[in-house]
Amino acid sequence: MTILDGKKTSNDIKDEIAAEVAAMKERGEKVPHLAAVLVGNDGASLTYVGSKVKACERIGFESTLLHLSEDTTEGQLLAKITDLNMNDNIDGYIVQLPLPKHIDEQKVLLAVDPDKDVDGFHPVNFGKMAQDMPVFIPATPFGIMELLKRYNVPTEGKNCVVIGRSHIVGRPMSILMSQKGNPGNSTVTLAHSRTKDLEKFTREADIIITALGVPEFLKADMVKDGVTIIDVGITRVADSSRPRGYRIAGDVDYDEVSAKAGFITPVPGGVGPMTIAMLLKNTLLARKRNREA
Amino acid sequence: MTILDGKKTSNDIKDEIAAEVAAMKERGEKVPHLAAVLVGNDGASLTYVGSKVKACERIGFESTLLHLSEDTTEGQLLAKITDLNMNDNIDGYIVQLPLPKHIDEQKVLLAVDPDKDVDGFHPVNFGKMAQDMPVFIPATPFGIMELLKRYNVPTEGKNCVVIGRSHIVGRPMSILMSQKGNPGNSTVTLAHSRTKDLEKFTREADIIITALGVPEFLKADMVKDGVTIIDVGITRVADSSRPRGYRIAGDVDYDEVSAKAGFITPVPGGVGPMTIAMLLKNTLLARKRNREA
Repeated sequence: MTILDGKKTSNDIKDEIAAEVAAMKERGEKVPHLAAVLVGNDGASLTYVGSKVKACERIGFESTLLHLSEDTTEGQLLAKITDLNMNDNIDGYIVQLPLPKHIDEQKVLLAVDPDKDVDGFHPVNFGKMAQDMPVFIPATPFGIMELLKRYNVPTEGKNCVVIGRSHIVGRPMSILMSQKGNPGNSTVTLAHSRTKDLEKFTREADIIITALGVPEFLKADMVKDGVTIIDVGITRVADSSRPRGYRIAGDVDYDEVSAKAGFITPVPGGVGPMTIAMLLKNTLLARKRNREA
Repeated sequence: MTILDGKKTSNDIKDEIAAEVAAMKERGEKVPHLAAVLVGNDGASLTYVGSKVKACERIGFESTLLHLSEDTTEGQLLAKITDLNMNDNIDGYIVQLPLPKHIDEQKVLLAVDPDKDVDGFHPVNFGKMAQDMPVFIPATPFGIMELLKRYNVPTEGKNCVVIGRSHIVGRPMSILMSQKGNPGNSTVTLAHSRTKDLEKFTREADIIITALGVPEFLKADMVKDGVTIIDVGITRVADSSRPRGYRIAGDVDYDEVSAKAGFITPVPGGVGPMTIAMLLKNTLLARKRNREA
């Protein structure tokens, strides 16, 4: 059994990007600049945005955090988005979700310049991805593809079951895994809340990518020997033995399932760390495209 | 066994649209206007475009055919596209594919104003569809969804196998069938040229949507009793007993498979006629949106 070590791999990727940035600096070029927009004071969002800014510093990117108050109006936010679109110094930016309820999230995401949409959430970028055009791939799916690639996990002709049909993980993963390419060329089944007899599908799967957010629902008797497991679930589970009173659980019962798996991502330290690394990678790509344009 | 009669259903839809157009006229409103761009003299393309224009006439739409010569340059075509985008009188238009080899098809499709893209081929429309936003759905997938809807074919929680991963049929069908909604909410497996042991998937399927273009490859022993069959394949097969020397064959061995099926589309007269009807429906939607804008 091989652990798909997202922590190590994401550090490798960050080192590679840092080396490229250092070379850019030496050549006197502008380095990539990532901005993040955060509205309000949601605890988890503050943590996420904070670690993105920190990652930028570590690898030599410029970064800007636009922290707006909870009562920012939709119009004010859209004006900031326009500023970011017009600002040539910023190569890419993200709008941290969720936004406060009084703001139309869809309207805001549609306002992001697709060429700066390093999260890959704009529909034109989603459509280009689905139509096999070169584009920013959403960070989490991009991270999973990169893990499969770097560990040479066989995917061609494999039976891949994706669990969860969200716009940011399940849906794009189902597309990427069934596209031509390596990784890719899998026969993909997309399962979701309305799927009947999920075990029937998981037991036949060579690869299971689960993004359901139900802690440890995937048990050993639901998978076959040698299966590849990608666990995107991250849920806090109460645990009085831990200093914080909780632990982070994936969708997979790791102890049970890892005994049968060929490849498996741990939680934490699997898919999670890859997401930030791929956001940085997209920002680097944005900078390179701007340089060539 | 119920035949999903695309010919009858498409005529119903055209009648419904014609009634709406007549009411528009009575109210003194502008009627929908569909334009078609055809470059060169490909026989099949001439036939397709011709029947689209004829269908417009029948239901009271205005129509314009822009027939450009085979040696039209990419720049000239793009200039025509700009004209169509700017022309307020035209609600929607299509660029008949394939284009001559010296023209970059992707570049042309990206130039189409998404609000006039009644074929639903522009990536921003594809992305919106995949992200569950209201949008023009590509005509063939839209037609299949409409057939399933009008015949009340059960889809929720059903095991649906889509064969073929093309941008215009297989990929969008796999998305639409797995989205929330009715029809929809199926567990969808997308199979393609790299799929191993296709029969294993088709034998378990409640619904099979095939768009492979391999005449009559789907046999009775590959499906289960009561299956719903949507056959998108259209291939000419040599047949000396026919006046034209060929017949049109679907992907399905109709005689064998229809004996086991619960619902089935014939070829011809199934999915084919629905495609033009839904193109007209999209053009009507475009007109209504323009009126409201």
